[in-house]
Amino acid sequence: MIAVGDTIKPCFLTASQAVALMRSGEMSVEEMARSTLERIDQRDAAVQGWAYLSRELIIKRAKELDAVPTDKRGPLHGVPVAVKDHNSPIYKDHAPEIDAACIMTLRAQGALIFGKATTTEFAATTRGHPARNPYDPERTPGGSSSGSGAVVGDFQCTIGLGTQTIGSTIRPGSFNNIFAMKPTWNAISREGLKMLAASLDTLGLYARSADDLELLCDGFRIFDDEMPVSKPINAMRIAICKSPIWKDAQNVSPSLKKVWQQAVDLLTKAGADVVELELPSDFDPAFNAARTVMWIEARSAFLNDYLNTPDLCNDEFKVHVENRKGLSRKDQLDAYNLLGDLRPKFDLVAGGYDAILTPSTTGEAPVGLDATGSAIFCGLWTGLHVPVINVPGFVGEVTGRYKDRQLVSVAKEVAKVFHRAHGGHIRPLPGVPQTLL
Amino acid sequence: MIAVGDTIKPCFLTASQAVALMRSGEMSVEEMARSTLERIDQRDAAVQGWAYLSRELIIKRAKELDAVPTDKRGPLHGVPVAVKDHNSPIYKDHAPEIDAACIMTLRAQGALIFGKATTTEFAATTRGHPARNPYDPERTPGGSSSGSGAVVGDFQCTIGLGTQTIGSTIRPGSFNNIFAMKPTWNAISREGLKMLAASLDTLGLYARSADDLELLCDGFRIFDDEMPVSKPINAMRIAICKSPIWKDAQNVSPSLKKVWQQAVDLLTKAGADVVELELPSDFDPAFNAARTVMWIEARSAFLNDYLNTPDLCNDEFKVHVENRKGLSRKDQLDAYNLLGDLRPKFDLVAGGYDAILTPSTTGEAPVGLDATGSAIFCGLWTGLHVPVINVPGFVGEVTGRYKDRQLVSVAKEVAKVFHRAHGGHIRPLPGVPQTLL
Repeated sequence: MIAVGDTIKPCFLTASQAVALMRSGEMSVEEMARSTLERIDQRDAAVQGWAYLSRELIIKRAKELDAVPTDKRGPLHGVPVAVKDHNSPIYKDHAPEIDAACIMTLRAQGALIFGKATTTEFAATTRGHPARNPYDPERTPGGSSSGSGAVVGDFQCTIGLGTQTIGSTIRPGSFNNIFAMKPTWNAISREGLKMLAASLDTLGLYARSADDLELLCDGFRIFDDEMPVSKPINAMRIAICKSPIWKDAQNVSPSLKKVWQQAVDLLTKAGADVVELELPSDFDPAFNAARTVMWIEARSAFLNDYLNTPDLCNDEFKVHVENRKGLSRKDQLDAYNLLGDLRPKFDLVAGGYDAILTPSTTGEAPVGLDATGSAIFCGLWTGLHVPVINVPGFVGEVTGRYKDRQLVSVAKEVAKVFHRAHGGHIRPLPGVPQTLL
Repeated sequence: MIAVGDTIKPCFLTASQAVALMRSGEMSVEEMARSTLERIDQRDAAVQGWAYLSRELIIKRAKELDAVPTDKRGPLHGVPVAVKDHNSPIYKDHAPEIDAACIMTLRAQGALIFGKATTTEFAATTRGHPARNPYDPERTPGGSSSGSGAVVGDFQCTIGLGTQTIGSTIRPGSFNNIFAMKPTWNAISREGLKMLAASLDTLGLYARSADDLELLCDGFRIFDDEMPVSKPINAMRIAICKSPIWKDAQNVSPSLKKVWQQAVDLLTKAGADVVELELPSDFDPAFNAARTVMWIEARSAFLNDYLNTPDLCNDEFKVHVENRKGLSRKDQLDAYNLLGDLRPKFDLVAGGYDAILTPSTTGEAPVGLDATGSAIFCGLWTGLHVPVINVPGFVGEVTGRYKDRQLVSVAKEVAKVFHRAHGGHIRPLPGVPQTLL
C-alpha cells in the first residue's frame, strides 16, 4: 500500500492506488479532490488543459461520495476523471441534461467527473485554445484529446477520456508521457459523443499506470474470451513492427529512431523473444483507407451543423460536407472493403505474439502550438479496429481485436522494463517527484 | 399539380405534393398542420401511434414557417414528420435540449416535427404500449418503429422516421402499406439516437410515395456516384431473390407465397427482364451473423443504463449486458468477418441488376399486439449495409451499398406496376379515398 504523505500527495497517486484508499475510507474523496484542485491551481496557468471546471461542484460531489457507506462504494469510487470537451462554438453554452453513456457508466461506479478538458474543435480541426505540453510549454500536448492528455500527464487529474478517429488518443498519450489506450472499436459505447467517423471513432482512456487501464477495462466490461494470466517479460514473444509508414523516411525523426532502438534493446535485454515483423504489402494502403473513411464519414457527421448553423460551422468541416476533396462512394467502399479484408488477416498475424510493438508518433512533441503533431503511425491500427496502448516514454503496442486485456497485461510488463529508462525526451515536471515520471 | 379540396385534404398529400404547395404559398403550413391534426383527432384512438404531440407547439411552429418569405423556404418546408420515440421509463420525462442530428438536418430544411411516435422500448424489446395497425386494430403495425409506420400509413403524418437494427423499419413499412427505406449504413448520421448495435443501426424513412423518398435522400445528401437516369420498367433487369431465409418453409406463409408470385407476374407482364437469383451458400449464415452482432453490441450499448438505473433496465437488455446467451468475442469477430467478407461480394452481385426483389416480411401483419412480426427476411440486408426499400402492398427491393438513389428510382417504376394491384391484404382505411391506398 502506498503511503500518502508530504511527498506523495493524493494527486500523484494512480487511480488504482487512490481508489483502494478511498473505498476503505483511509483517504477521503474530498482529500483526493482538494489535492487535485491544488495541483490544478499551481499548474493550470502553465498547461491550460481545462475547458470547464467547477470547484464547488467537485467538492459537493466529493462530499456526497464520502457519505456513501464503505460497503456500497463502487470500483471507481472517488477517482477524478477529465472528460474531453467538444470545444465548438456551435454548442458553446450547452450542458446536456443526460450524460454520454461512457460518463454514466463511470459515474455509476463512483467516478468523480472533474471537468471538461480542452480539445481541438470536435476533435477534428486545429481550431481551439491550445493546451500546453506539461513538460514544455512551447510544445504541443498532441491532439485532438489535448487537454485530457495534458492534465493526466501533469497530475492535474487521475484519469482522462479522449476519443480517437485516427490518432487522437495515442498521440497525446505519447507526448504527455502517460498510458493511453484505444480499446477495440465499439467495445465501449460511443452514445452521446459527437461523432466524426462512425467506422473509426473510439473512446480513448488516459492513465498513469497499466493497473489503471485494467481498472477502466473492468469498469467498461472489456474482457477477452480468455483472460490473460500474468507472465514475466522473458516468457513473452514480442513482435516489433515499424509498420508501412516507416517506409517513408520523412515519417521517421531521429528521436523516433533513437527511442525505437532503445525500446528494442531494453526488451531484448530483459529476455523477451523479440522478432521483427513486416506486414504484407496489402497493409500499405491501409492508412490512406482509414483517412478516406474519416473524410467521407465526416460528410454525414457534420451535415446537421452545416445546415443548422452555417456561420458557426468551421470551414474544415464544410470541406467534407461539400466533398471538396471529390471523394466518391467508390473510394469509400474501396476503403471499407480493404479494411474489412485486412482486419481478420491482422488478427491472425497478431495471434502469433503477446503483443506487437509499433511507433505511437513520428517523434517527440513538436515545438509550437498551432499543430498537434502527426497521427500517421496510428491510422492503420484505428482502421483495423484493434486495441492500441501507448507505453509512456517510448512506443505503442497493438494486438488483435478483443484482446484488449492481453494488451494491458503486456503493457504492464513492458512498462516495468521501460520505467526509469526514458526515451530521452522526458524533462522534469515542475512540482512532481522525478520517481513518478 | 394536385388539387386540394374536399376529397384530397392536405393530410392525404405526399410530402412532395404538399411541399410544392407550401413553398409557393398556395397552401399554408398551418392548413397542412391543421388537416393532419384533424386526421389525428379522428384516428388516434383507433391507431394509438403517437407517444407525444403538442398541438400548441405544432401550430406555433407552423405559423413561424408561414412567416418565412417564399424565397427563403427550405426544400422540406412545412412537411410534417413523426419521430420515433425511445419509449423507455429510464428517460421518461427527458426532453433533450439539442435535437438528434437527423432532426436538426430536417428542421434546418423546414420540416415541421410533429411529435414522437410510439415504439417498443429502445427499439429492442416488446415492452411498450402497442400501436395498432391502421388497417386492422387487431393486428400489429410491426415493430420496432411501430408508431412511425402506423401514423404515416394512416395519413396522420406525412413522413416518419424509424430505425433499423434488423428489420425495424422495413417490417412496419410492409405492414402499414407504405414506402419504407433503410438507406446504406451510416449514410445518415445516427448522432443523438439511442444505439442498439453500432454496426447495424440505421435511420429509417417512411413515406407514402417514392418521390418522397427522393426528397428525403436529397435532404440527407444521399447521392450515388452516378445519379440514376429514369427509365421505364421494360428497360429494367430485376432479380428476384427469395434469399436463404426462404429455404426454411416455416418462414414462408401462404400470403407471402401469393404476394411473391403476384409481384413476379406483374413485373414480368410489365416487360421487366425478371431473373431468378440464388445467392451463394456463404450467404446462408448471414442472418445469424447479423443477429449475433446485434446481441453482442447490445452488451456495450446498454451497460450505462444497466449500471445507472438497474431497476428500470428491462430484463431483455440485462440478458445482453450479462451475456446470458454466452456469446464469445470469437463469435462476434466471426460474425464481423463473415459480413465484412460478404459486403463487397453482394455489391458485385447487385451490380448486375437494376434492383433485387426480396420479401420484406414473412407475410401479412399478424393478428395480436404482443408480438410485432418477424424480421427474419431483413437481417441479411441490414448486415450487408445495403439500402432496402419496401414497396407498398408487396415486397422489398435491395441493391449494392451507396446505390440508394438507383434503388429509389427503381422503386418508383415498380410501385407504378404494383399500384392498384395490391398483394391481397390491403383493406379499406377509414376516411381515406381508396385511390390513395
